[in-house]
Amino acid sequence: MKEFKVRFLPEKRSISVDSGTDILTAAIKSGIHIYNSCGGEGVCGRCKVVIKKGKYITEHSGRVSEKERKKGYVLACRTTPQSDMEILVPEESRLGDIEVLTEEAKAKRLAGLYTPAEKIEEEHYKAEARLFRHGPLSTKLFLKLSPPSLDDNCGDVERVFREIRKGRNIPVMQMGLANIKKLPRLLRESSWAVTVTLGNRNGTAEVVLIEPGDHSGKNFGVALDIGTTTIVAYLVDLKSQKVLAARASYNPQVDFGEDVISRIVYAGEAAGLEKLHHVVIDTINVLIYSLTKEQGLTLDDITAIMCAGNTTMTHLLLKINPAYIRKDPYVPAVNFMPVIRAGEAGIKVHPRGLLSCLPSIGSYVGGDIVGGVLASGMDNTEAISLFIDLGTNGEVVIGNKEYFIACSTSAGPCFEGGGLSSGIRAMKGAIQKVSIKDNALAVETIGNARPKGICGSGVIDALSAFLQYGIIDRAGKIKDNKICRVKEADGVKRVVLVDKKASATGREIAIDENDIKNVINSKGAIYTGIDILLKESGYKRHDLKHVYIAGGLGTALNIRSSINIGLLPDLAEEKFEFLGNTSIAGARTCILSSEATDKAWSIAEKMTYLDLSTNASFMNNYSAALFLPHTDIDLFPSVKKALHF
Amino acid sequence: MKEFKVRFLPEKRSISVDSGTDILTAAIKSGIHIYNSCGGEGVCGRCKVVIKKGKYITEHSGRVSEKERKKGYVLACRTTPQSDMEILVPEESRLGDIEVLTEEAKAKRLAGLYTPAEKIEEEHYKAEARLFRHGPLSTKLFLKLSPPSLDDNCGDVERVFREIRKGRNIPVMQMGLANIKKLPRLLRESSWAVTVTLGNRNGTAEVVLIEPGDHSGKNFGVALDIGTTTIVAYLVDLKSQKVLAARASYNPQVDFGEDVISRIVYAGEAAGLEKLHHVVIDTINVLIYSLTKEQGLTLDDITAIMCAGNTTMTHLLLKINPAYIRKDPYVPAVNFMPVIRAGEAGIKVHPRGLLSCLPSIGSYVGGDIVGGVLASGMDNTEAISLFIDLGTNGEVVIGNKEYFIACSTSAGPCFEGGGLSSGIRAMKGAIQKVSIKDNALAVETIGNARPKGICGSGVIDALSAFLQYGIIDRAGKIKDNKICRVKEADGVKRVVLVDKKASATGREIAIDENDIKNVINSKGAIYTGIDILLKESGYKRHDLKHVYIAGGLGTALNIRSSINIGLLPDLAEEKFEFLGNTSIAGARTCILSSEATDKAWSIAEKMTYLDLSTNASFMNNYSAALFLPHTDIDLFPSVKKALHF
Repeated sequence: MKEFKVRFLPEKRSISVDSGTDILTAAIKSGIHIYNSCGGEGVCGRCKVVIKKGKYITEHSGRVSEKERKKGYVLACRTTPQSDMEILVPEESRLGDIEVLTEEAKAKRLAGLYTPAEKIEEEHYKAEARLFRHGPLSTKLFLKLSPPSLDDNCGDVERVFREIRKGRNIPVMQMGLANIKKLPRLLRESSWAVTVTLGNRNGTAEVVLIEPGDHSGKNFGVALDIGTTTIVAYLVDLKSQKVLAARASYNPQVDFGEDVISRIVYAGEAAGLEKLHHVVIDTINVLIYSLTKEQGLTLDDITAIMCAGNTTMTHLLLKINPAYIRKDPYVPAVNFMPVIRAGEAGIKVHPRGLLSCLPSIGSYVGGDIVGGVLASGMDNTEAISLFIDLGTNGEVVIGNKEYFIACSTSAGPCFEGGGLSSGIRAMKGAIQKVSIKDNALAVETIGNARPKGICGSGVIDALSAFLQYGIIDRAGKIKDNKICRVKEADGVKRVVLVDKKASATGREIAIDENDIKNVINSKGAIYTGIDILLKESGYKRHDLKHVYIAGGLGTALNIRSSINIGLLPDLAEEKFEFLGNTSIAGARTCILSSEATDKAWSIAEKMTYLDLSTNASFMNNYSAALFLPHTDIDLFPSVKKALHF
Repeated sequence: MKEFKVRFLPEKRSISVDSGTDILTAAIKSGIHIYNSCGGEGVCGRCKVVIKKGKYITEHSGRVSEKERKKGYVLACRTTPQSDMEILVPEESRLGDIEVLTEEAKAKRLAGLYTPAEKIEEEHYKAEARLFRHGPLSTKLFLKLSPPSLDDNCGDVERVFREIRKGRNIPVMQMGLANIKKLPRLLRESSWAVTVTLGNRNGTAEVVLIEPGDHSGKNFGVALDIGTTTIVAYLVDLKSQKVLAARASYNPQVDFGEDVISRIVYAGEAAGLEKLHHVVIDTINVLIYSLTKEQGLTLDDITAIMCAGNTTMTHLLLKINPAYIRKDPYVPAVNFMPVIRAGEAGIKVHPRGLLSCLPSIGSYVGGDIVGGVLASGMDNTEAISLFIDLGTNGEVVIGNKEYFIACSTSAGPCFEGGGLSSGIRAMKGAIQKVSIKDNALAVETIGNARPKGICGSGVIDALSAFLQYGIIDRAGKIKDNKICRVKEADGVKRVVLVDKKASATGREIAIDENDIKNVINSKGAIYTGIDILLKESGYKRHDLKHVYIAGGLGTALNIRSSINIGLLPDLAEEKFEFLGNTSIAGARTCILSSEATDKAWSIAEKMTYLDLSTNASFMNNYSAALFLPHTDIDLFPSVKKALHF
């Protein structure tokens, strides 16, 4: 087999590979990380590179458009070199998508931006100190055992159990055969000083791991938010209770369907469930690997995973058939998932490490929402609160400490940057604020970087501004105006936010009428959900004392803009609080506290799920909401007044 | 490769095999079961066959003596045919050793013999009815679930849990991922009528298995007694609470050492632990396979194993290093073993089936004794009782409902027929009674079959009779006499019980002076154990209200003979009760009742272990006991009087 030199641009990094080696593998070997959510199967189309020089063989793929092909685009995983080559790895194909969230946070602080994610962090420390006792999913205890003697001759296992129980009330304790087998020698070689990792398995304490010597200072877990569109992972120091690092990635299942319904359908196809499971686990493994590597840890240092995800995401994570979620009467296989070993789901951490999932309520309200309610603290007060998660599934909860009622609306991914022609996740370079100043459009990006695209908070801002300045009408149609450039292609108009030259990707950033329609559909679905829950629970809009908003839609969500477009009910702004990603916040709180986890279970038990698809008034109300802000403008008096409708 | 016809005698059963096939494999293929405890490795020497015709290649083995070799004996596993052959499989090499105990019991009933094993069975039914609620290690519940609806839309797992909990107090319930994955389709395809196998895992209820339809009538477990010398398995119907069948086999670990100490030493050699574990698991698997096959069941029908064994046997079963059992301060790796999957130990039953071990007290008092105390009922009364297990480890327990004190003595295997020149286990053809009538020896065999050898009860009877009639002196030396034939070889005298022609094996059955010495050592050790426990607990011989004797030494144990030789203390005969194999009785009781299992744990918690090896007075007392019945004849007033010493 011949050997060729492949040179990657713009790094100018070279590597010699066999002619049989694909470009994706060559890139990975040379330390350049290219996105590939299908594992190099030519399916996901995320590993596009541009051939600059050299001969090659490539398989044609529907993932590469005719236009791209002409420019030299190929899928790296399907292309092998036939000569020395030069290859450009474009920005959008780079595994920068696995983003270091803490760095983003740092950047924001430096830029003086409002950083609610950090605010949540701080508040959570307070909340935990107030509410939840420290008691992680897995705890490391350093035990100095008294050595056995003729007078104290209990067995090794019993000696360890006895020491663990000192000062602790543990009715049921378990230890697996593998650990028992290791125990006799380990205890004696360590002079009876060992570190025991104690896992909390639904009311049973399990000795997950035993190590010689004192390792009690080193105990790590990963909190996961598995969203339909985005996966976020926090590396958590289970002892100091600090988040050491955070990373996020798109959920590669997006390639198989944007919302949970299309994923459930795909899971029903041959090997569909297998593929969906495979890609999400792969991504989680990459996230965890990156996090541990960054912190100088190994995968074996991770002994606990706490996962918050909607019901379908949790099923797919565990490779449980989600088919019945979307079949009448919409019943999941499991809501209260018992703790298992992370390895059973394919997650590569310590082989005996545990995986706990926050409980779900029903088919379309999952552990992410339970985590969110926990993070909001609305379960801790008499006051009636509204909780809204602006994810791909737009979930809405109303309630107080006594009970909750919840529903889910198919909001679609646009608040997470999905399904928009220039949409991206809330990441560095995402346009998060749009305003009109001096009769001109002004945009602001996360990290003040060159703009890459627009995220959820940006598009809400944009629509509000467009509406206010008559750039769009209340039906979302773009009108000619003097403030911004309007282009048209195939009969679809668009407002250009950033032109090719100013953009970081070399592509124009715009909002077209389809995007606006998507946003109107999304906001209409969520508003209708709120409306129906209020009616079902017998409350009026003004009975709501707090409105908590959650979601990964950007750190700069503008409440005023959200009310203006009819996404949020017309209430005094001080009632609103944007909490950011409460799913990950809930997972983080629960991985650190079994008391919080118990609380999450009791929240789930108290929550009633209302199925909107079988609700008689939903379609009527929904149709009325497909207007900016609403067909019935009197529901939005402040907007009526401000915008002079 | 050439093919040859191998004909097995006396069956005259033929099979054609390749020239590379060993005779053991050929025999197994033709349905003739030959004993091989090493798995065909040429190690155990149990697969001896006699070549009658034909050419062959064989590996020489120390297991075949020069004399045997001349007669045509070879190891079947080390021999391959080089022509057509005729091969005799002698009685002693046949896997008749895996004996159908219930058939033996039937035979005895027909013969009108005293059948204490059956008596125990009956008594146990009574005892259970009185004491222990039915609640097996694994229970099959037929559940008719209400199908989900919009009003009752809890998840599949929660629906199953809810139904199981109806009328049952189960705080902690578990279900593994494998079952959860199967659940959605299974529930719907079975129209919500399923059978759940619920396992009892140390205070946690686990859904071990879910099947469509009603299989609640079919629930089976295996109770195991893993003795140092003998392994007994009961196939138990967990629903009807009946023992369906029982089989027994020698413990093939005997090939690596007769007592627990030599096995622990062997386990310390390279691959020693692996081998000891391997052979015992193999034997258990063969026993279980035979039992299920006989009853028309499959291995998957078995979902629970309850095992009683001494501490070393339990360690070896689980492949846990037993080294520290015999090192000061004599501490086992585990006394209270958590429930695991049987498959984890290598036992081939349902892959998710459970294995529970009765708890041990210390290094030399194990779960067999805890099971025995439970079976005796001595934990249920104020009266002080003595419990003696006449196994290879001679364990002694004194106590009542408040507390127990226990010790272990190295009795050796002779009460189980081991270590005797003509000794066999208590099986069909074993001499179980020996008496002198009309100045001649009379023997009685189990099942009135042609005698094969002598078992424990027979040798006790024989020594008592020999002593009474002056055939041996009080030191155990054989004297010339007119009652029976005395022969001598290499300076060792022997009493012939059955000559070659009358024996089933074609070999003479005799008791020689070495055998007698072994029995004296054994009975001396046990008597000393009793003596020391009495002293330690502050009781006198006459304080004992009951004496329970356990062991597999034959169903016809003669209490009078046992007192005569100084094995049992000199008390009124009505105080004694022979309970047979209480280890298997305990295992059987516990597999049927979690209440009994809890009781076993509390017995173990109440029991103090006295280590005789570190006891100052043991050696003095022991030396004094190495006489028939004892150096101090005044300890045995009834013997003194009856035998005119």
